[in-house]
Amino acid sequence: MKKFKAGLFGLGVVGSGVYTALKQNEKYGISIEKIAVKNINKQRDFDLPNGILTTESDEILNNEGLDFIIELINDPEEAFGIVKKAFEKGKSVVSANKKMVALYHQELFELSEKHGVKFFYEGAVCGSIPILRLLDQHFKSDTVKSLKAIANGTCNFILSKMVSENQDYDSALKDAQDLGFAELDPYSDVSGEDTRFKLAIMIYHAFGIFVHPNKIPLQGINFLDENLVQFAQKHQLKIKLIGEAHNINDKIKAKVEPQLVSEKQNFYNIENEYNGILVDAEFTAEQFVKGKGAGSFPTALAVLSNLKDLKYNLAISKSSVKKEIEYSNEAEKEIYFLAGFNDEIPEIEILDREDAYYIVNSDIYHLEKIKKKHPNLYWVKISQDIYEKINAVLNNLKLR
Amino acid sequence: MKKFKAGLFGLGVVGSGVYTALKQNEKYGISIEKIAVKNINKQRDFDLPNGILTTESDEILNNEGLDFIIELINDPEEAFGIVKKAFEKGKSVVSANKKMVALYHQELFELSEKHGVKFFYEGAVCGSIPILRLLDQHFKSDTVKSLKAIANGTCNFILSKMVSENQDYDSALKDAQDLGFAELDPYSDVSGEDTRFKLAIMIYHAFGIFVHPNKIPLQGINFLDENLVQFAQKHQLKIKLIGEAHNINDKIKAKVEPQLVSEKQNFYNIENEYNGILVDAEFTAEQFVKGKGAGSFPTALAVLSNLKDLKYNLAISKSSVKKEIEYSNEAEKEIYFLAGFNDEIPEIEILDREDAYYIVNSDIYHLEKIKKKHPNLYWVKISQDIYEKINAVLNNLKLR
Repeated sequence: MKKFKAGLFGLGVVGSGVYTALKQNEKYGISIEKIAVKNINKQRDFDLPNGILTTESDEILNNEGLDFIIELINDPEEAFGIVKKAFEKGKSVVSANKKMVALYHQELFELSEKHGVKFFYEGAVCGSIPILRLLDQHFKSDTVKSLKAIANGTCNFILSKMVSENQDYDSALKDAQDLGFAELDPYSDVSGEDTRFKLAIMIYHAFGIFVHPNKIPLQGINFLDENLVQFAQKHQLKIKLIGEAHNINDKIKAKVEPQLVSEKQNFYNIENEYNGILVDAEFTAEQFVKGKGAGSFPTALAVLSNLKDLKYNLAISKSSVKKEIEYSNEAEKEIYFLAGFNDEIPEIEILDREDAYYIVNSDIYHLEKIKKKHPNLYWVKISQDIYEKINAVLNNLKLR
Repeated sequence: MKKFKAGLFGLGVVGSGVYTALKQNEKYGISIEKIAVKNINKQRDFDLPNGILTTESDEILNNEGLDFIIELINDPEEAFGIVKKAFEKGKSVVSANKKMVALYHQELFELSEKHGVKFFYEGAVCGSIPILRLLDQHFKSDTVKSLKAIANGTCNFILSKMVSENQDYDSALKDAQDLGFAELDPYSDVSGEDTRFKLAIMIYHAFGIFVHPNKIPLQGINFLDENLVQFAQKHQLKIKLIGEAHNINDKIKAKVEPQLVSEKQNFYNIENEYNGILVDAEFTAEQFVKGKGAGSFPTALAVLSNLKDLKYNLAISKSSVKKEIEYSNEAEKEIYFLAGFNDEIPEIEILDREDAYYIVNSDIYHLEKIKKKHPNLYWVKISQDIYEKINAVLNNLKLR
């Protein structure tokens, strides 16, 4: 069998995992010939052959002997430049750069088609969970109705600690940083932006349309406070940051926001750094997948599975996309727990109110508008089911 | 792109789904040219081209123009004869016949290798859940430590009804039959045999060894009674029929038996006809998948995904199997709820006893031996965690 040769960009957490796995497992039949890094002299805890490292990306990109490129650097713009050039040189690419894929998704596809090369990025979304593969391969003959995901381990870890162990947001975040889950600058995680990148990518694989992440409305977890935690604990609920997208009459509606979940829901048991994804499709009905969403080995394994796809010359085919499907900038009205405001909030349908919070009926675009005047405002979605259960409890208390 | 031609055996629930999907979706690029059925004149609720049906399997097997064979009949021995002949004729096969695959697994692999053809059967295990694909593709570079599955929708439906709606076994079974989940002869489902076929198949994809299903010890749900249901309800537990396999120091230990599960476990939320599979691997850690395990469309989709594998000429590679791994006829001691006996049971370590049941410390092979003398005996596994929780409750009651 033909032995394949690859060039690698980036030798960080994931890159090291990929390099080590390919080296230890001859069976893959893929060897890394050259690795582009920022600093050749950096101390590394594994041996490298002399001369394999370079700081010149062109040494890899111009090397005619390489079959494909593995792109595992952090910076999305720099990564895009590398991938683009690789495509132009006729080389297929595997990447795990969610931000690059989300920001340049359509362009990357068009470029790869133009140059007749392949582009895979399973590692960009939810680490070891092969969600893009599932959406592509298994739902090809089905129609996805909705997609919901806990896609950020840092947020989920913080929310687990806040609800189960009564930690406040800052101390839970510090724990996550100490354990290496959260970046020193956790903004992208806790603002929900990271979840939104992944959701935007998944939307393409579920519904066949490209959506720029900025078009998806967003509420992170960085404003949640003890008012919410007490409310959740009182009603035996948990808090999860969920990205979701629905196909409603060929309009794709998407958002990222915290939600209250009950023990009846699949998401209830997704704790700490785990990710979970629920896909509802016409024929297959609900499918739920849970696994580790990040980390060196889980992500490296996803990269390796894509290298195998390249070896076997697989393709992502979206030929069956219905022309009518389009992204919608509207949202359904839902029930929300609303807190973090100081003054009265006008023009909102209040279902219930306490000193520190409202229960309202609103939609995320309206809430985003209100937030402009109330910067600490936050909202958490309450499903109809849960609202009815809470209401029954409250009415019961009042009747007594 | 080349248009592929296939011959189909069987036009039942799954066969009809596959035929209809391929006909409606030109994009698959696969056409069914000939269909072997038992009865040509049977009334069917969809149109068929004149002359596509035949009762002569050789009309398909000897047809040089066909690229592959889709085998979807019920009888495992007859199916094996067809598949074997197809291999000899140099044709690759997709099947969804779990019993055939489980009973002739190794032989089928050796024959397909000998004749240089492919053999895929994703539809044989857990319908729409692509568990074999997951085990093959994603865990190729990892080491699977254990595998646990709710793999039979009929049993799960019956157990859901017994615990949540207080139905007795017979009435729950009747409901399952009325709804079309259970066969008129439900023995293979409720005895656990069906789960065991699927577990045997999964063991190969998880650990790389062939195990005859008869080697896996088995306890079904057909003896469970109200003693267990009351016990489960009292402790807020659910009952699930679980097939599991563990790699313990390169010895694969497997069994199928009912287990008590608590709300902390992923299996707790698998209700009615759903299936769920938990895979624990060294690098990826826990992965959990839930979905519909049977039915026309879910299974047809799995078959279609395999047809795509054939088109792209994929292979299942098990070249990396460690030579030392072997099946073990031993089981660990576990805690069991034991009931359905009339006389005292000798030679068993009893941890707790009530009139109608014991809590014992034993292993499934020992329990199988005891069952020979007590035909209505049944056991249900209690995990260490749950046992400790139950014990705390009981001790608390005694202290009062």
